[in-house]
Amino acid sequence: MKCEKDFLRVGVFDSGAGGLTVVRSLLREGLFDEIVYFGDTARVPYGTKDSNTIIRYGLEAIEFFNNFDIDILVTACNTVSAHALPRMREKSDYPVYGVIEPGIRALENRIQKRDADILVLGTRATIDSARYQRELHNLGYERVTAIQTGMFVPVVEEGIFDGEIVEAMMRHYFRDIESAPDAVILGCTHFPLISTAIEDYFGGKPVMIHSGDAIVEYLESHGLSPGAKRDTELRIFASDNVKGLREIARNWLEAEHRR
Amino acid sequence: MKCEKDFLRVGVFDSGAGGLTVVRSLLREGLFDEIVYFGDTARVPYGTKDSNTIIRYGLEAIEFFNNFDIDILVTACNTVSAHALPRMREKSDYPVYGVIEPGIRALENRIQKRDADILVLGTRATIDSARYQRELHNLGYERVTAIQTGMFVPVVEEGIFDGEIVEAMMRHYFRDIESAPDAVILGCTHFPLISTAIEDYFGGKPVMIHSGDAIVEYLESHGLSPGAKRDTELRIFASDNVKGLREIARNWLEAEHRR
Repeated sequence: MKCEKDFLRVGVFDSGAGGLTVVRSLLREGLFDEIVYFGDTARVPYGTKDSNTIIRYGLEAIEFFNNFDIDILVTACNTVSAHALPRMREKSDYPVYGVIEPGIRALENRIQKRDADILVLGTRATIDSARYQRELHNLGYERVTAIQTGMFVPVVEEGIFDGEIVEAMMRHYFRDIESAPDAVILGCTHFPLISTAIEDYFGGKPVMIHSGDAIVEYLESHGLSPGAKRDTELRIFASDNVKGLREIARNWLEAEHRR
Repeated sequence: MKCEKDFLRVGVFDSGAGGLTVVRSLLREGLFDEIVYFGDTARVPYGTKDSNTIIRYGLEAIEFFNNFDIDILVTACNTVSAHALPRMREKSDYPVYGVIEPGIRALENRIQKRDADILVLGTRATIDSARYQRELHNLGYERVTAIQTGMFVPVVEEGIFDGEIVEAMMRHYFRDIESAPDAVILGCTHFPLISTAIEDYFGGKPVMIHSGDAIVEYLESHGLSPGAKRDTELRIFASDNVKGLREIARNWLEAEHRR
């Protein structure tokens, strides 16, 4: 990573608005001078789509970011991270980071015992890829449950973060879970927005792993120093309805300040 | 319409799986020898996207159907019908039917009194277009309420047609409705699958207007004779995960037979 440069520009790629939760973490830590965000809102969501389609969309995002002189690219989207990273890395001349490996590292830093109950939540495509499950098994975690919780995505996009719709969905998705897990991996950038609801559902017990915080931790452990940059400029691009995306950005990033 | 032809082939275009509810109606009435279905599953849903994007996708669908010698095209998707029909008609050399005008006609045939309470449900893009609302007002209907109920789409796509998630969503969306409407226009091809739940919510009172039944009625009133064709061949194409779409088709079209 070109950490010695005076000016650091990161690209953040997401299928839609979800990656703004990663932006939130990057802004909070002040790791970059400029964030170029691209949300492929014309084709969102990716999580219900096939691997080949997701790879194609990932490669097209590389084309988009080639218009900017970015130093690194973060694919905030777990679905893209699960399917398209190797191909995207082949096609780019800057480092491309996903969120799955950082998420796994963040979990490892917090949960040492290998018989802990780990719950992985993600879209259909992320869970089907078994990327989280495989990495966790490789590290010796024995009790991993993975659930496709794709309906949380449109609910969050509608601006609903708690209440009876979210609760009904949790009862539906978690119907076979008998006791609260020790950790929950929020394997989709939308899910941090309902993190509190999920935590409450499980009685406040689980450690929550959030892609945005995980990638910040990961970048810092790879040489980016926190707080070095204070006034990050955020530029937002979208393949559809950029005005709408900018409005969501204002709401979500403000919601952060209000916390 | 070329009704004199021995062999009638219809194209049915939808953003994804939803249009299969229209296929169901077409199959039931046996209006065509062959149905060529195209679901743009790589970019579904359309209902959250901008008008220009929806028009572009509609025009690309025309390109797709130019590969087949279709006699007419039905755009099953209400969102496309609301935004892209004029442009699609310019670009095609066969008649292109939407579902909004047929839906309005179906309502008019069933609800005569102009002070009836009409509830229109649709995606954001459909409701924002105000196509239903304007047509209804032009016909003198005075009491029209339109609500964006986009979250029903992913719920139906998850195979959930009733129960507490659907009920929680109805309480959310219908929170300002004080008394049961006289008619509900299901202005999205996904909604017929939760028609019973909506009807029950309103105490069984409303007349339910379903795009599939409406387009059949409309085509019949425009010269296609019902029941003329018995063994319709259905060919299904998708821009992503065609296997998944064919499976949904099997489930939904079977569900119909079981009713």
